[in-house]
Amino acid sequence: MKQSIQKNPGGAMPETLADIGEFGLIDRLDKLLREEGARLPEDTLGIGDDCASFQSRAGYELLITCDCIVEGRHYLPRFISPMDLGRRAMVLNISDIGAMGGHTLYALVSLGLRSDTPVKDVEAIYRGFIAELNPFDAAIIGGNLTKSEGANFIDITLIGEIESGKSVRRSTAKPGNSILVTGYPGQAAAGLHMLKAIPVDDVRAHPLVQAYNTPSHRAREGEAVAKSGMATAMIDTSDGLLGDLGHICDESGVGARIIQENLPISSALREAAGLMEHEPLDFVLQDSDDYELIITCLPEDVDGICSLITSLSHIPVTEIGAITEKTHGIKLVSHDGILREITPSGWDHFAK
Amino acid sequence: MKQSIQKNPGGAMPETLADIGEFGLIDRLDKLLREEGARLPEDTLGIGDDCASFQSRAGYELLITCDCIVEGRHYLPRFISPMDLGRRAMVLNISDIGAMGGHTLYALVSLGLRSDTPVKDVEAIYRGFIAELNPFDAAIIGGNLTKSEGANFIDITLIGEIESGKSVRRSTAKPGNSILVTGYPGQAAAGLHMLKAIPVDDVRAHPLVQAYNTPSHRAREGEAVAKSGMATAMIDTSDGLLGDLGHICDESGVGARIIQENLPISSALREAAGLMEHEPLDFVLQDSDDYELIITCLPEDVDGICSLITSLSHIPVTEIGAITEKTHGIKLVSHDGILREITPSGWDHFAK
Repeated sequence: MKQSIQKNPGGAMPETLADIGEFGLIDRLDKLLREEGARLPEDTLGIGDDCASFQSRAGYELLITCDCIVEGRHYLPRFISPMDLGRRAMVLNISDIGAMGGHTLYALVSLGLRSDTPVKDVEAIYRGFIAELNPFDAAIIGGNLTKSEGANFIDITLIGEIESGKSVRRSTAKPGNSILVTGYPGQAAAGLHMLKAIPVDDVRAHPLVQAYNTPSHRAREGEAVAKSGMATAMIDTSDGLLGDLGHICDESGVGARIIQENLPISSALREAAGLMEHEPLDFVLQDSDDYELIITCLPEDVDGICSLITSLSHIPVTEIGAITEKTHGIKLVSHDGILREITPSGWDHFAK
Repeated sequence: MKQSIQKNPGGAMPETLADIGEFGLIDRLDKLLREEGARLPEDTLGIGDDCASFQSRAGYELLITCDCIVEGRHYLPRFISPMDLGRRAMVLNISDIGAMGGHTLYALVSLGLRSDTPVKDVEAIYRGFIAELNPFDAAIIGGNLTKSEGANFIDITLIGEIESGKSVRRSTAKPGNSILVTGYPGQAAAGLHMLKAIPVDDVRAHPLVQAYNTPSHRAREGEAVAKSGMATAMIDTSDGLLGDLGHICDESGVGARIIQENLPISSALREAAGLMEHEPLDFVLQDSDDYELIITCLPEDVDGICSLITSLSHIPVTEIGAITEKTHGIKLVSHDGILREITPSGWDHFAK
């Protein structure tokens, strides 16, 4: 023990961004991407010029999304490792591409970092990006590094492609459509609740905490669903199940009826909610950083979509209700048959 | 006077983001963009879904860049109005597209804002974006709004297009090429120096302060130069004249010889530098938030490029030196014929 302390003096400060500077960091990240990231197609220009450049394929349209996470607001460093943070930041963007039915191609990464940020943490964040991008053979082709005076932030722009005319929007659900949802929305919200209530080291390995820290996207599933042509609308649940169902209803000019007893609740969530003295429903319906899909389709296509998704992965797909006329609003049908109007309250970033 | 105070009580707080929330702000900005921004092409999907989508033209490649400015780091609210801030943030991205020879098509805007930010300031920032995008008929098609706990920031991703194979890179300068520069690099640095030294109200209208607060891009000129095929390399001066000439030298594996007496110094800069007891050269060569172009070309194309640019605008184009072999480094030839090696020191965001 003593020897290891002598070899690597405990007081040695880790190398920070202030030590190597912006261009030093760019060189390090460039090397890391070349060694561990996906290779660029021949006709693509990556990091190192005023812009990146790429060609799009004939017959395809391009999808583009951007999402930003801010330290203290969307994550707390004591809850999540730098690598998991990188994964999560990338997953939420991949999820947006997948929710339109697209395939991820390229990322641009804009980081705001304090000078005292350890270089190894930035490299770990990048390894998190790569871990999520490599399965798509997708590369980081550009970005920006800037010094932050306060909170660190990660802002990612992601580019995907989809066959022209095949993208699935939120504005095209019709009354009579069935509403499906993948997986178990609300698990991340419960995981965050646990992190806030229980010492981190005691719950780090809990499946709900892992659902929060390293969420999965359903981009492969979204891509397959779009290709099948069976979905009438699709969205991911980044604003919570109710919030995003609300977006579909707003944009499509429809209402929705949700059958309470059909809502998928994992046994982990049911158990944890009990211990935390919460209704599982609070987690399932409200804000939660899960990236599941809400899919609407004709009733006769429910089986087709379910088999398609379960042929790709083991995540469950649940029919939770139906699209109604706009005048009905969004209603929850409880166990005893009572209809309650529920208000979609997505995560509102500026509300008092 | 008294009456107007009664009508609009002086103590009334301006409406803030906390008052209208994220989705309220999105609605307001959406309306503003529809009323004042460029119209989207038929086959383009803008704000309102998981992703934006667009088609690229056959025979064209896409250019993409992203740049972020952070309050306190890249701007101080007391120096710049929200509208000018929006313009500047957009100009520096348009400049990157233009420095490859591209034409700006679409923007995505990611804002990090404190809850107490007045809504009218955000609208003014957007009007600044629009003022710079409308001349290109370019639209904002997506983005992200997030609450910032500390400094506000504006992160823009800009997409442009260029005929395939026509983009001009920084890595293709050759020994013997002439080095041209547009306009007067260093004016913005001098303007910032004045803002820091002199009460803001006294210098707000000074041309150098305006060069800092509302810089111009040379994207039209860059596009024309790329189309002509006469440039061997091109870059904008966002890291300062010397910093960006250094990028060309690094990426092209060459050196450069700069003739000191050829460096363009505006009379405003010369006069202000005298008053501030600085060498004009300090401003011209070092970090400066100007967005001029450095262009390298064969000596026989110098006249062609100069006439091309001056046919588009009244900005001067100056031949400041020549590309040399890498082993020569970057040298400055002073008035008395003495050669000095100078180190490109671009703006290094994390240096101690």
